[in-house]
Amino acid sequence: MSEQTPSVDLALFGALGDLALRKLYVAMYHLDREGLLADDARILGLARQDYEAEAYRARVRDALESRVDASERTEESMERFVARLEYAQVDFTTVDGYSKIADWRKDSSRPLVVYLSVPASLYGDICQHLESSGCLDEHSRVVVEKPIGYDLETSIEINDAIGAVFDETSIYRIDHYLGKETVQNLLALRFANPLFGDQWNQSKVSHVEITVAETVGIEGRWGYFDQAGQLRDMVQNHLMQLLCMIAMDPPSNLDADSIRDEKVKVLKALRPIEGDMLNTDVVRGQYIAGSVGGKQVPGYLDEEDANTESRTETFVAFKTEVSNWRWAGVPFYLRTGKRMPEKLSQIVIHFRQQPHYIFDPDQRSLAANKLVIKLQPEEGIALQVLTKDSGLDKGMRLRQGPLHLDFHKAFPKARIPDAYERLLLEVMKGQQYLFVRRDEIEFAWRWVDTLIEGWQARDVPPKRYPAGSWGPVSSIAMITKDGFSWYEDY
Amino acid sequence: MSEQTPSVDLALFGALGDLALRKLYVAMYHLDREGLLADDARILGLARQDYEAEAYRARVRDALESRVDASERTEESMERFVARLEYAQVDFTTVDGYSKIADWRKDSSRPLVVYLSVPASLYGDICQHLESSGCLDEHSRVVVEKPIGYDLETSIEINDAIGAVFDETSIYRIDHYLGKETVQNLLALRFANPLFGDQWNQSKVSHVEITVAETVGIEGRWGYFDQAGQLRDMVQNHLMQLLCMIAMDPPSNLDADSIRDEKVKVLKALRPIEGDMLNTDVVRGQYIAGSVGGKQVPGYLDEEDANTESRTETFVAFKTEVSNWRWAGVPFYLRTGKRMPEKLSQIVIHFRQQPHYIFDPDQRSLAANKLVIKLQPEEGIALQVLTKDSGLDKGMRLRQGPLHLDFHKAFPKARIPDAYERLLLEVMKGQQYLFVRRDEIEFAWRWVDTLIEGWQARDVPPKRYPAGSWGPVSSIAMITKDGFSWYEDY
Repeated sequence: MSEQTPSVDLALFGALGDLALRKLYVAMYHLDREGLLADDARILGLARQDYEAEAYRARVRDALESRVDASERTEESMERFVARLEYAQVDFTTVDGYSKIADWRKDSSRPLVVYLSVPASLYGDICQHLESSGCLDEHSRVVVEKPIGYDLETSIEINDAIGAVFDETSIYRIDHYLGKETVQNLLALRFANPLFGDQWNQSKVSHVEITVAETVGIEGRWGYFDQAGQLRDMVQNHLMQLLCMIAMDPPSNLDADSIRDEKVKVLKALRPIEGDMLNTDVVRGQYIAGSVGGKQVPGYLDEEDANTESRTETFVAFKTEVSNWRWAGVPFYLRTGKRMPEKLSQIVIHFRQQPHYIFDPDQRSLAANKLVIKLQPEEGIALQVLTKDSGLDKGMRLRQGPLHLDFHKAFPKARIPDAYERLLLEVMKGQQYLFVRRDEIEFAWRWVDTLIEGWQARDVPPKRYPAGSWGPVSSIAMITKDGFSWYEDY
Repeated sequence: MSEQTPSVDLALFGALGDLALRKLYVAMYHLDREGLLADDARILGLARQDYEAEAYRARVRDALESRVDASERTEESMERFVARLEYAQVDFTTVDGYSKIADWRKDSSRPLVVYLSVPASLYGDICQHLESSGCLDEHSRVVVEKPIGYDLETSIEINDAIGAVFDETSIYRIDHYLGKETVQNLLALRFANPLFGDQWNQSKVSHVEITVAETVGIEGRWGYFDQAGQLRDMVQNHLMQLLCMIAMDPPSNLDADSIRDEKVKVLKALRPIEGDMLNTDVVRGQYIAGSVGGKQVPGYLDEEDANTESRTETFVAFKTEVSNWRWAGVPFYLRTGKRMPEKLSQIVIHFRQQPHYIFDPDQRSLAANKLVIKLQPEEGIALQVLTKDSGLDKGMRLRQGPLHLDFHKAFPKARIPDAYERLLLEVMKGQQYLFVRRDEIEFAWRWVDTLIEGWQARDVPPKRYPAGSWGPVSSIAMITKDGFSWYEDY
């Protein structure tokens, strides 16, 4: 099944940036080490700084040494990887430097992959200059990162700018959540397991929860974050993508557009939060000083560079519905926040209770199956089932226990690849099913914009929550009043 | 939840027999040690042998020492238990000795539990003598063991003899499979887990397998076994009980008759094997010499005391159907045999495949969920699910892996109680739901008798199979021709 990865020339814009140094070289290195990079695949690092190629390679080597486990590094594999690297100093905003890319590409028949690890404001210029300097052909691809815009309008501008040069089938918009093994596993879980697939609908599912909790605060990027807020920064992309993977109808096959067509249908069917729902179905929060993991931490308004008048949310929880045949009437509860008690990304499918119950009446509330899909900190799947308590003195007492599939424990030898490894590999293969199509971005913004407009019209201030808590208490109240509670205890 | 077990006087007929020494004292000892025996509960051992009470207690103490783990024995707990024991030498066939029971019971207001660990041919006499010697009142209960008869006719005789003295609500017929934790767990699995319960029918289940394999051969009871054969000895009771627990409709509550009514409905709906089905849907086998666990063992006809002309089966496999709304069209494959490669009791529910399949076509046959319920050698439940193979080079390759609940591993501190502990506890509590009602026995015999009559009419000799194999190859062929195979690899 393993097949040779097609070779590419990768032009990496923002080659000395944070994402590149933290994630991209490490991912490429792992692919190389596992034999998943073609022998002649090459990388051209592009940045404004004046660097010699050797100094650049040394910088990348440092990054690998601090981020790749020693057991996964040999002098040989490190050398092999950095030998693929070249460097060019380029001012991205003027066309002059782009000839360096053309020079590097001379005589290469490999497709060009352009990775834009730079602010979105530069996308338009870079695409234009790439084209006018003759770097592109019909095999060229471009990889872009979030955020694609600040709202629907700006996302259209950005997508138009890229689209003026690249065809949609050549644009790879990354949402790194789609690169996570467990997220891809949702396809297998849902569509290869009739036991789950057949019950994945409103007649069998009671409600769905998605939690993406971070322990970190703002970490020196206050100004950037304060412009966005948690809704734009996390919900518009990651949470919406998770929601789509959970809620979409089965695609008739696995090709990129079949999958993305189904995801778009979810986004189109997503009930907007407006009117009275702004009072009942959504909670905005902003953390105040508190304690996370035993450490005292400042509040959002006390962070370095903070505007102490800011009303930006660092937490959002909401209830929505996918208004279609599959999901009508099933609440979806989503929440994401900073300075939560633990780093946790998980999806919980709560199956309905049976109408009749014959065991201990005190335990009736137990008798519902839950499928818990955990993305962070460890990836794994657990099915909560009820079994008989085995104690002799327990009669037919029930006990809830997980049928458990922890990928690390189940397959201890298998390294779980980082999301970027999977995504870069798919770019090289030219497979788009794990990337976000333009209309997905835009429908997600449309939904987010409606909510933000509602907030603005009512001028709703965020509710305070202490760092280290699960957000404002009204987030608990929002789900409790429906008779449910946020799932705890994996 | 733990409540005081009601006190009883237990009169144990066959107090020096194999079952008593191997199982019953050990089970009562464990109950005592766990505080589940009332302080003043007593046991009167009854047998023909001339024993002093002290010698009897010493004999029981020996049995406990060889069968109870040292970590679960203290001098105090042993002494406490044997102090409950008295002994009476009684000829069961004459009424004279029964006054000893009445003497022992003098002034006792505890209910009398009579445990008949003796051949069924004695049941009638013993019940009569108990009654005529005035030992019984409306609180008395009787516990009996299989075999209840040799066919329908003899089972009716035995049940009539007991029924002449005891009311059905006072008769506790043991099938020790019903005392196994995992078998009781079937109730929880099916009726407290909508995820399984909702799919437990012909529209979702493809087929069901039940295997009860033994590694032992005849072990010195050739004459007894040869009269019965594997069908009478294992299918009529244990396999039929497992089949009922798997196939029954949900009882509207957990009381004994609600459950047993549903089990009887299964037995009544069980399609008899007759006519051409005798050629296609059933395989009789008899083992010849071979090797089990690396040890050479003799064939059935070479065993000590063997009649070398015997046509008795030591293996039987068959296909049947429960002809009702829930199961019409779903084949049930059952097999049981001696001298199999491993000791294994397991039930496998094979769920249907989905009609459409979008992953690697080579893997299509994988894509079916299986629920594997293992009773021996260890009790546990595993759900076979398909997940994405996590290797980067695997694309959307699938992998089958278990979501696993092994009771020993999941709850390492919990001792799995022996079936007899559970069953004796339920007798003391006066709860009959784990005991076999008269009509269950009789409908099971009716089905077995039809098959045996078919064999006799056609004079079908058993097929030979080497000890250490999974039975005659035609047992494999019987399931393969339907496109399935016996499940392997837990």
